[in-house]
Amino acid sequence: MLRFAVDAMGGDNAPACVVEGVIQALKESDNRFEIVLIGREDAVRPLLENHDTSKLNLTFLHAPEVITMHDVPATAVKTKQNSSLVVGLGLCKQGKADAFVSAGNTGAQMAASLFVLGRLPGVQRPTIAAYFPRISDGLTNVVDVGANVDCKPEHLVQFAEMLTVYQRDAAGIEKPLTGLLNIGEEENKGPELLKQTYKLLQEADRKGKITFIGNIEGNDILQEKASIVVCDGLVGNTLLKFGESLPGFLTSIFKPTIQQLAASGELSPQAAETASQAFRRMFQPFDVEKFGGVPFLGVDGISIVGHGRSSERAIKNMIYMAEHMIEKKVNQHIAEALAQA
Amino acid sequence: MLRFAVDAMGGDNAPACVVEGVIQALKESDNRFEIVLIGREDAVRPLLENHDTSKLNLTFLHAPEVITMHDVPATAVKTKQNSSLVVGLGLCKQGKADAFVSAGNTGAQMAASLFVLGRLPGVQRPTIAAYFPRISDGLTNVVDVGANVDCKPEHLVQFAEMLTVYQRDAAGIEKPLTGLLNIGEEENKGPELLKQTYKLLQEADRKGKITFIGNIEGNDILQEKASIVVCDGLVGNTLLKFGESLPGFLTSIFKPTIQQLAASGELSPQAAETASQAFRRMFQPFDVEKFGGVPFLGVDGISIVGHGRSSERAIKNMIYMAEHMIEKKVNQHIAEALAQA
Repeated sequence: MLRFAVDAMGGDNAPACVVEGVIQALKESDNRFEIVLIGREDAVRPLLENHDTSKLNLTFLHAPEVITMHDVPATAVKTKQNSSLVVGLGLCKQGKADAFVSAGNTGAQMAASLFVLGRLPGVQRPTIAAYFPRISDGLTNVVDVGANVDCKPEHLVQFAEMLTVYQRDAAGIEKPLTGLLNIGEEENKGPELLKQTYKLLQEADRKGKITFIGNIEGNDILQEKASIVVCDGLVGNTLLKFGESLPGFLTSIFKPTIQQLAASGELSPQAAETASQAFRRMFQPFDVEKFGGVPFLGVDGISIVGHGRSSERAIKNMIYMAEHMIEKKVNQHIAEALAQA
Repeated sequence: MLRFAVDAMGGDNAPACVVEGVIQALKESDNRFEIVLIGREDAVRPLLENHDTSKLNLTFLHAPEVITMHDVPATAVKTKQNSSLVVGLGLCKQGKADAFVSAGNTGAQMAASLFVLGRLPGVQRPTIAAYFPRISDGLTNVVDVGANVDCKPEHLVQFAEMLTVYQRDAAGIEKPLTGLLNIGEEENKGPELLKQTYKLLQEADRKGKITFIGNIEGNDILQEKASIVVCDGLVGNTLLKFGESLPGFLTSIFKPTIQQLAASGELSPQAAETASQAFRRMFQPFDVEKFGGVPFLGVDGISIVGHGRSSERAIKNMIYMAEHMIEKKVNQHIAEALAQA
């Protein structure tokens, strides 16, 4: 039976939301797996006592230290060895857990995952991809979104290779399409980094490791030209954060407009509510909680990284994601893909 | 009297829309300036004949060649010396025009502007900034948005300095705030380029050339943390194009939803129309046609670059922008700012 280590202390709504998510996952899955919930006893125990957990495959492990969102990643990992984050990844390393799930400090989780789990053979730099809004089926993953800056061409190519395996295995996309995010479509466009990367991506395509569709531009992302959008972490991180700020920005314009129309009688209260619902529905493609989180790809283990704002639903889906990645042998396939010359 | 050279052949809706825009500008301004409209006689003359231009300060200049959107910039500029673009910039160089305005091939306009007009003293790389959506007064300019990739720290600092002058002179912003677009707020975050740039921006701030507020992230742009957002052209171009694709993307979700609600009777036809109007109004901050275009900052002359989709309103506003930049002596002030040690 698979066993997941879950960080009870990670995320803006932790530990309450993590406890709820974990219990939901176990109930919903009929105890299909085991969960070790890790955190501070004084914070987590009282929450667990609100539930009847006697029939759940749930154990609790006390970890006295907590890495907060404000901790400096590298320092925190070194100085807080008894944190839920480091302890949880340690369980994976020792074979006492099959995956680790957290919605805590992303930088610290990446640093600790790399330090504790190490890299898969052949992987130069593990990476994090984000899910971008999409209307039709499939995925749009932008990679990297901040785990790596100052990338070299070979790093970007490995990101494409790892994501190709991930999308094939985890999402069943037969032929993931890789686009290189650039300022123009032509091969000779853009910075030196991307010109060189272009050639290497062509080579990877010829070897059958990826399907490369060439350069794509910022406006091609939401048009779903590629399922894998490759860029340096600076570009991806900026795009991701810009995109995340959009629903709030647009709502801050739309909401008062609708309220005004309702106040002036131009819209009935009911019509205003219906319009607002339609407006909110528009952001459904922006809902990435259905995925829960994203795997830190390329480390020798499964480490799922959640958004700080993760809800219990996100936590639950992160656990399913971990399970799915193990069943589909994503890591084994990544190592095989990168081992090929 | 100021004299503007306007490219009749530039833009998706050229020459019709350029002719309209030019005539509107002259009528609206009571012939406050002169315009030389440049383009192919066979394409432009018939359009002019639809109007009574006898009382307008409008002259037409035939240029037999046309640089299209599909032409490779550097090649086009070399091989099409008799194009409206090269001829128009030539007039500026010869002192026969005070500014050049085009909504044509941006790459070609940049190349030709640089080649024909040259750089202002002290400017290493001329740049193009874009206007980003903003709710409150003021401007948000992201710079660079594609004119320069592989930027060095000193280039990014000059972009900030030039934009500071531009926003002060052209928009009357007393103290433009410069933010460096990065993956985190801390000084030591991000790629090497930005770590070095951070220090140089601090220095420029100490010298009073700019007001530097530190690193900002993608989600800070629409929150208007800075009026000048500095980044390499790869990042800025990607963000700009991503942002431009949003209204279309969101409309493609919202419109059918509203239509469905109207069809099912959940919204009356009138309420559906009102809601759609509120929706469209939400994109008003995305309307950059009020600015018309953007100046190619740092060249020794005024070259205003418009969007390919420019309407007559945009063309008209680009002419006003050129006039305003001359009156406010933006170029002189840029040269003075960059000459200071």
